[in-house]
Amino acid sequence: MSEQTRFILSENDLPRFWYNILADMPVPLSPPLHPATGQPLTPDALSVLFPMDLILQEVSQERYIEIPEPVREAYKLYRPTPLIRARRLEKVLGTPAHIYYKYEGVSPSGSHKTNTALAQAFYNKVAGTHALTTETGAGQWGSALAMACRFFDLDLEVYMVKVSYQQKPYRRFLMETYGAQVFASPTDRTQAGRAILAADPESPGSLGIAISEAVEVAATSGGKKKYSLGSVLNHVVLHQTVIGEEALKQMDMAGEYPDMVIGCIGGGSNFSGIAFPFLRENLRNGHRTRLIAVEPTAAPSLTRGVYAYDFGDTAGMTPLMKMYTLGHSFVPPAIHAGGLRYHGMAPTLCALYDAGYIEAVAVPQRAVFEAAVLFTRTEGILPAPESAHAIRVAIDEALKAKETGEKRVILFNLSGHGHFDLSAYNAYINGQLEDLALPEEEIAAIPSRLPRIPQDQTA
Amino acid sequence: MSEQTRFILSENDLPRFWYNILADMPVPLSPPLHPATGQPLTPDALSVLFPMDLILQEVSQERYIEIPEPVREAYKLYRPTPLIRARRLEKVLGTPAHIYYKYEGVSPSGSHKTNTALAQAFYNKVAGTHALTTETGAGQWGSALAMACRFFDLDLEVYMVKVSYQQKPYRRFLMETYGAQVFASPTDRTQAGRAILAADPESPGSLGIAISEAVEVAATSGGKKKYSLGSVLNHVVLHQTVIGEEALKQMDMAGEYPDMVIGCIGGGSNFSGIAFPFLRENLRNGHRTRLIAVEPTAAPSLTRGVYAYDFGDTAGMTPLMKMYTLGHSFVPPAIHAGGLRYHGMAPTLCALYDAGYIEAVAVPQRAVFEAAVLFTRTEGILPAPESAHAIRVAIDEALKAKETGEKRVILFNLSGHGHFDLSAYNAYINGQLEDLALPEEEIAAIPSRLPRIPQDQTA
Repeated sequence: MSEQTRFILSENDLPRFWYNILADMPVPLSPPLHPATGQPLTPDALSVLFPMDLILQEVSQERYIEIPEPVREAYKLYRPTPLIRARRLEKVLGTPAHIYYKYEGVSPSGSHKTNTALAQAFYNKVAGTHALTTETGAGQWGSALAMACRFFDLDLEVYMVKVSYQQKPYRRFLMETYGAQVFASPTDRTQAGRAILAADPESPGSLGIAISEAVEVAATSGGKKKYSLGSVLNHVVLHQTVIGEEALKQMDMAGEYPDMVIGCIGGGSNFSGIAFPFLRENLRNGHRTRLIAVEPTAAPSLTRGVYAYDFGDTAGMTPLMKMYTLGHSFVPPAIHAGGLRYHGMAPTLCALYDAGYIEAVAVPQRAVFEAAVLFTRTEGILPAPESAHAIRVAIDEALKAKETGEKRVILFNLSGHGHFDLSAYNAYINGQLEDLALPEEEIAAIPSRLPRIPQDQTA
Repeated sequence: MSEQTRFILSENDLPRFWYNILADMPVPLSPPLHPATGQPLTPDALSVLFPMDLILQEVSQERYIEIPEPVREAYKLYRPTPLIRARRLEKVLGTPAHIYYKYEGVSPSGSHKTNTALAQAFYNKVAGTHALTTETGAGQWGSALAMACRFFDLDLEVYMVKVSYQQKPYRRFLMETYGAQVFASPTDRTQAGRAILAADPESPGSLGIAISEAVEVAATSGGKKKYSLGSVLNHVVLHQTVIGEEALKQMDMAGEYPDMVIGCIGGGSNFSGIAFPFLRENLRNGHRTRLIAVEPTAAPSLTRGVYAYDFGDTAGMTPLMKMYTLGHSFVPPAIHAGGLRYHGMAPTLCALYDAGYIEAVAVPQRAVFEAAVLFTRTEGILPAPESAHAIRVAIDEALKAKETGEKRVILFNLSGHGHFDLSAYNAYINGQLEDLALPEEEIAAIPSRLPRIPQDQTA
């Protein structure tokens, strides 16, 4: 039906399997290294933080991994999510391009993060975990995990960056309504937190500190508590592939196939979630869809970072991963897309980008909000500032298609809504938003922020 | 499929007609009266405020009124909305009842209000209106109309109760992002506003004052601006019947028929929207579904009000309508369900309640939030405090079914999400929420608040 706007799958079409890109990697993936020894990590070494099912998913070479029935049941509260053709946006742009978006903001906690939160909570529950610990910045991840822990009857401690805890009380209230305990990090509950507070009692906190606290609490709990991460790792990316698997079916319903798939990247999981199933079709079935990752100019890991081994956190407690990085001690400018303010990137995504299978582009903050407001006024949905990075590039590509007169089929991932980000919109509308691009001296300083390990392992 | 959770209609199942209860009213409806003369109002007298298409819908006796194609196209951005079986809630309650909810919070502006906002904006656009004026309290209605005006290229002036303007900036930012102008009422833009400010420069405003300002601006615009109302009137209720028409089809998909349909009432439009199509089935096809309207004990129009002619606004500028009222000068206690803080009620709903076709129950604030938190923790979705009134009674009915061991099929309308109401949740969780029931002397004072017209017309 050519006039259709939303493409809706039935519950029967909810995917039964996650797609594991590790089975199809066209380039080898460098192994994670132990943070202290610099030697390749054994699965066992991770078991203090994660249940074995997730560790096995981290290294599995199986192409398809079955989604457990209790996770599928929970997915059914909001999945399959809609694929929507942005007809009103197309019309305003006057483009011959067809623009589709997959809308993950219908998840109860408001973003794609729920897809992995439910899976991680489930695997922890069956492994006998009593409680999870995690960190959160802006709060999308913390909200999703808070809901998932309630669903699978786990306690949850969230270490929330203190400045966000103070400035974004609504996200905290949401986590608490789900039943989570939320602490303003740095806290006096951990050695890591106490050390920071001793040096600076007024520390506003950082994602790196919060990770250190959450990891420490899990690692010293005698196995009762495990740690949970919302992006970057292979098993997180795996769980997000439900997005792309559904989108493939829905594009088929629409009778089209995307020329390009676009998503924003912070740790890389929502982009990978929609893009990897399309990459499989490129690799195995001869499609040639462009896969475009969009990052902020304020934290341009792929476009300006260095491809090297680095820590996932600021304190250097996590394994070393080979990734495009701005350096683990890098503190990005305070753009409103808090979910994209991360120094590193998912190792699978980095390897694929390095080998040319994926493109990347960096966009500045004001252009992102310009796109977000245009989208809100045409499509009605207020996007998360993170997701608006994808909208910006979708619009740019649609305008290029207008210039050349080519019909292009564009698909992007609208990973979440912006209901908790309205102060940023207000700042933009009142002309108070700055671009906050990264100074060149920050880029030049990246190598000095890399850990002192033999980086020749990165070859 | 007995294990199904969400019942999803395709775009083809989007209703083509609104259902007009006036065609099937089993009791006569008392006519609206002119506020100055007390004589029955002619359609023409309303034309300074509304376009003729809406005035005709206000008095139409046609059973089915076709939804214009541009409105259906806009509905397709979020309609049909899902019907969801609350399996996890049922399980926690241990009830034999089956609980279904129709979820209107998937609308881009977050509530059912979008259903009538789009229709009203469309009819104004084709009538040549340049701009709309309206009032808003908590902001659900203002947000919906702001989106609709942007879609149909109309300017919009929103008179927002000053205390809400100050306390709920996010709702205001949302309206402004859609492109509306939002003023803190009382303003110095109107005679009504200036009079209030002259008497009290620090006036926090009220819905009544805001209505007076919005009405005055439209009435004195020389026909360029019209006024738009988000509930109470027949044409508003008409537009909301898409909810019930979809729910009828979805209950059929589920292979069940509701024993009761539950909704919250402020002005009555979301409850009427889901209930009237089921009332039609009661009246015309022999069904016996109970229709239960839920109001707050703080503003108990149906359960404690007087059935009499009264004004729709505080200043007495609107037509007189026969309705259950707490008196047009009544100021309800400051419960968090701002959308239910209204002195009157839709006249059709009142006539049907008076004749026994509809039941009503009043519930106190803390019990409502208790239900809301239980719902959030089981179903994941954070409900608007207004909608949580319906959840409270759905849970109570499910617990009665548990007591008697009877299987009951319960359907309620989850009219919106609570993403902008998290401070209320925080207050509840921290034990800072009070019930704010209405003192008996307030009830006793209702007759003294009624307008001095011959109330024998109410016979």
